[in-house]
Amino acid sequence: MTGSTFKGCIQVYTGGGKGKTTAALGLALRAAGRGLKVFLGQFLKGQAYGELISLKRLSPLVTVEQFGRKGFVHVTENPDDEDVSLARRGLERCIEAMTSGDYRIVILDEINVAVHFKLIGEDDLRAFLGRKPDDVEVVLTGRYAPSWLMEAADLVTEMVEIKHPYQKGVKGREGIEK
Amino acid sequence: MTGSTFKGCIQVYTGGGKGKTTAALGLALRAAGRGLKVFLGQFLKGQAYGELISLKRLSPLVTVEQFGRKGFVHVTENPDDEDVSLARRGLERCIEAMTSGDYRIVILDEINVAVHFKLIGEDDLRAFLGRKPDDVEVVLTGRYAPSWLMEAADLVTEMVEIKHPYQKGVKGREGIEK
Repeated sequence: MTGSTFKGCIQVYTGGGKGKTTAALGLALRAAGRGLKVFLGQFLKGQAYGELISLKRLSPLVTVEQFGRKGFVHVTENPDDEDVSLARRGLERCIEAMTSGDYRIVILDEINVAVHFKLIGEDDLRAFLGRKPDDVEVVLTGRYAPSWLMEAADLVTEMVEIKHPYQKGVKGREGIEK
Repeated sequence: MTGSTFKGCIQVYTGGGKGKTTAALGLALRAAGRGLKVFLGQFLKGQAYGELISLKRLSPLVTVEQFGRKGFVHVTENPDDEDVSLARRGLERCIEAMTSGDYRIVILDEINVAVHFKLIGEDDLRAFLGRKPDDVEVVLTGRYAPSWLMEAADLVTEMVEIKHPYQKGVKGREGIEK
């Protein structure tokens, strides 16, 4: 990639509040506006979210791949083989994207949750970050970010839920939450 | 607007951490993907951010207007007449958009900062929210959200800065921060 004065950081968006995935989407939107190529890998998701439809209009600057089964997978401490296999293949795809020289920004959406539920090992994520080229920005989202990851990152934002409309019975509105 | 089973909430993204504006951008992206029209008003900004270039590709679903002087205005406790005039005109534009029946989502980016620095009165923002139609989602961003606003909102997320790359000397990268 040419003109690599760009210094890529590791960004983490974690916590129980809303705005983690949407912040990553906004980053993709902003980067694409500047002509930077973005790879967005979505762990645990295999569902047609509104963002995917819009991001297609930003093609070829933004590439999206999903690494979950159809529908959001509510993983437990005992994910099954298919969940694990999809997530691991997902991490491999992110490694390929990150080291390809094609992308300036690589987003691993919900990766923290995938690690928390042991679909992906902490060592595998550590190894992934160890291979980050200097001129690639890596963005990791999801609650439960481990403390070593927050230590390793350059930027960490915790989204803290002060109030949530689910408390009022509003849930999963198309175009807002999904 | 037809099919108004949609229940619009008031969302607030505040706090000192990163991701407030980008979360709002991600919401716009997601909503547009579902065919919902979005009005994005940016207070205090009059600068070609990367997001504006991308959002143009989502036209006519997303309309963006800026209500600041060229370049981000670093307002102080004593903003001048032009800053005030631009912000107030901006709030009027947001009222027009919110009550027009054209938009399902109206975003007031950095409005909390504009109120904090008294470019816009708290009573004016209260009056604005009092006119919110039931089927419009309103999203307000910016640090310094007043407590009455957080009380009035349905969803409040505080972005807490755990670590920021500016601490390491990385700042204002095109495509990432702007």
